[in-house]
Amino acid sequence: MSDFIKSVNVQDIRFPTSLEKDGSDAMNKDPDYSCPYVTITTDSGLQGFGITFTVGRGNNIVCEAIKLLSHLVVGQELSSIFADFASFWRSLTSEDQIRWLGPEKGVMHLAVAAIVNAVWDLWSKIEQKPLWKLLVDMEPEQLVSTIDFRHTTDTLTKEEALEILKEMQAGKNEREQLIKETGYPAYTTSCAWLGYSDDKIERLCKEAQAQGFSRFKMKVGSDLQDDKRRAQILRQTMDPSHLLMVDANQKWEVQEAIDWMRELVHFNITWIEEPTSPDDILGHAEIAKVLKPLGIGVATGEHCQNRIMFKQFLKAGAMQFCQIDSCRLGGVNENLAVILMAKKFDVPVCPHGGGVGLCEYTQHLSIFDYIAVSGSIEKRMLEYTDHLHEHFENPCRIKNGNYVVPDVPGYSIDMKASSLADYEWPTGRVWQALIKEGVYKV
Amino acid sequence: MSDFIKSVNVQDIRFPTSLEKDGSDAMNKDPDYSCPYVTITTDSGLQGFGITFTVGRGNNIVCEAIKLLSHLVVGQELSSIFADFASFWRSLTSEDQIRWLGPEKGVMHLAVAAIVNAVWDLWSKIEQKPLWKLLVDMEPEQLVSTIDFRHTTDTLTKEEALEILKEMQAGKNEREQLIKETGYPAYTTSCAWLGYSDDKIERLCKEAQAQGFSRFKMKVGSDLQDDKRRAQILRQTMDPSHLLMVDANQKWEVQEAIDWMRELVHFNITWIEEPTSPDDILGHAEIAKVLKPLGIGVATGEHCQNRIMFKQFLKAGAMQFCQIDSCRLGGVNENLAVILMAKKFDVPVCPHGGGVGLCEYTQHLSIFDYIAVSGSIEKRMLEYTDHLHEHFENPCRIKNGNYVVPDVPGYSIDMKASSLADYEWPTGRVWQALIKEGVYKV
Repeated sequence: MSDFIKSVNVQDIRFPTSLEKDGSDAMNKDPDYSCPYVTITTDSGLQGFGITFTVGRGNNIVCEAIKLLSHLVVGQELSSIFADFASFWRSLTSEDQIRWLGPEKGVMHLAVAAIVNAVWDLWSKIEQKPLWKLLVDMEPEQLVSTIDFRHTTDTLTKEEALEILKEMQAGKNEREQLIKETGYPAYTTSCAWLGYSDDKIERLCKEAQAQGFSRFKMKVGSDLQDDKRRAQILRQTMDPSHLLMVDANQKWEVQEAIDWMRELVHFNITWIEEPTSPDDILGHAEIAKVLKPLGIGVATGEHCQNRIMFKQFLKAGAMQFCQIDSCRLGGVNENLAVILMAKKFDVPVCPHGGGVGLCEYTQHLSIFDYIAVSGSIEKRMLEYTDHLHEHFENPCRIKNGNYVVPDVPGYSIDMKASSLADYEWPTGRVWQALIKEGVYKV
Repeated sequence: MSDFIKSVNVQDIRFPTSLEKDGSDAMNKDPDYSCPYVTITTDSGLQGFGITFTVGRGNNIVCEAIKLLSHLVVGQELSSIFADFASFWRSLTSEDQIRWLGPEKGVMHLAVAAIVNAVWDLWSKIEQKPLWKLLVDMEPEQLVSTIDFRHTTDTLTKEEALEILKEMQAGKNEREQLIKETGYPAYTTSCAWLGYSDDKIERLCKEAQAQGFSRFKMKVGSDLQDDKRRAQILRQTMDPSHLLMVDANQKWEVQEAIDWMRELVHFNITWIEEPTSPDDILGHAEIAKVLKPLGIGVATGEHCQNRIMFKQFLKAGAMQFCQIDSCRLGGVNENLAVILMAKKFDVPVCPHGGGVGLCEYTQHLSIFDYIAVSGSIEKRMLEYTDHLHEHFENPCRIKNGNYVVPDVPGYSIDMKASSLADYEWPTGRVWQALIKEGVYKV
């Protein structure tokens, strides 16, 4: 394995999802699910693929950011990266001049994620294991060597992380066996986007139940009466034992969130997701304090920019459900840091899925979490939406409302050649047709 | 004034400051001070200029981000923007798809700043006033109409902001007169960059004192013994009444910051700046709690991404000196929000200067703060560094260690045509020469 990284290539891939109002919520009216698609190629011709998720315009900016970082990647020896992945990771997040543009947040951090995720894909393929299994089989020392603990040691040191992992070695094989049999619990967001009609919501909820789903998420926050009516439809359609979560996508002020949720309390809501600004740790803590006695937890994380923010959300009791994002955070390495911190605070990790590729990614993180860190699926579930899986060579699979444990080597993000050709912006076949029709313009 | 914005142009301007180690600190070894330079032109040929500051690589990414936002700017009527600037501002920070890349942080927010600053420059020129005077002369109602209060109303509502401004109307004329006579207090960072030798530090400190400076900032955080020696040199060179601040540029862990500063306490330090991650509100609060009884305040802000983070720093007692940044925040509008919040918490605003153009910008914000919001210069001072002022048509001026109140209409950022031609990356004359010599490569 004295292989070197020879090239980093990136393609601007976008899907015209806004045409169907898929993915519409209180803050994102018309998302076109998109991703920079990174291909890392080594001297010997090995390839790893990685993405980060965006919702359309600006995907090209992240592609440019990936190109900017490429000089830190090309020429690196794989064995050196794998021996000290934390240092490689820090070289990407802390480059002397580029760091100013974050640090560790926004466009540049999304770019880091795509690159880092591609390196993990490559590693998993070399080891001939799905990513979750690569992680699960690592010695605790090796696993923590991939994590940059900078600016988190007041809350989680390398030594504490090691201790957690060592303690959870017991029972790993049994849990691996069990989760392969049962699958990992999923919930669906696909029934109740904000742009969907009442009829459509009812129909989709029935269909989802028939497929085995028992956990549902509804978008809220634009109109209280609408929210009540839609919650009513869902609750009437759902089995009483089923779980209902709601998601405001950052729409509210702190007090507004509290007032609004009080109005929805009798619908038996498991969590309110993103009630206000994703940067507002103290605001979330205030909301959580009021809603906790009402049985409603606060969930957030898909816009939580890095481990340092997660650290504070956890410390402040501002987050009862920890929604890591495989791409918003700087790839697998930083997700591992947050998974370990969440364990310390006994907060369940329920990753952000949906978009394009997020379900493919996060299944690995949650399965690892279950087998090697949390050891529990209590209060834990993985988001599922039914978009765009057809573009992946090895899409995630749902069976009876649970994710099927993936068994193909890698991080499950290889996109089909035909999809790459059709959806590259703006030159792909599908885009050229839409541009010609005047539906989109460059 | 039925003028429309006809075009938004951006140039990638960079200066090879790293060749001299100017601006070197514990996290930024070799910055090349840079800026996207935005020119907004109206139908009738009026022009406004705006920048945002970066430290080199990646400046092009921010330029691309500005281009991405331009469709929201071109075609807008000036009178509509000025009548409801908050809505225009929100249209830039909350564009449906682009918002995903932040929100309100990093690359995209730096881009917003450059555009917004150019609009303010244009407005000031139309009104034939320097920016600070445009702000000072606004009716409180008009001033608050420029601010987006989203996600801050739990701490500062529009009504409270109005109340602050109305209360401070009394004595405005007197304060304006006074500050024109005395100038605004400055401190210098130019004596003690991390890359400077002991001799150079001593010499520069003497020179600065001869010029009237009585407040000095030193970079720390790489080596404790070095820091002690350098602080000793400064303290021996400075008058005993003079102020000494130190700046760690995010280098430390929370406990490390506390331990390190305890070792420097006998040098009589006014503030420790950026002791740890700029995202770590709770960490800063912990540091502040320990250092306060030792007479050391915590200062931060140049990497504080938006008003929502400032809100929490202020609320948590994590910031005894509020270092707004004219470009890191989304331009003038968001700086106004933070200046008003700082007033509410009685925390002095001491803006981040230096880089390229930041001193030109922040003098306007501090002068406005003094005349119309804080009414005080106690514990307040404006950072000054002596780089790159020669490139501006109307550079800031220092007299006896104070900023001279600017009197030229606009926001003081018009760059000389020759500088734009020489320093545009990578085609400018200076860069072409450096590239030819092999000192830089594209």
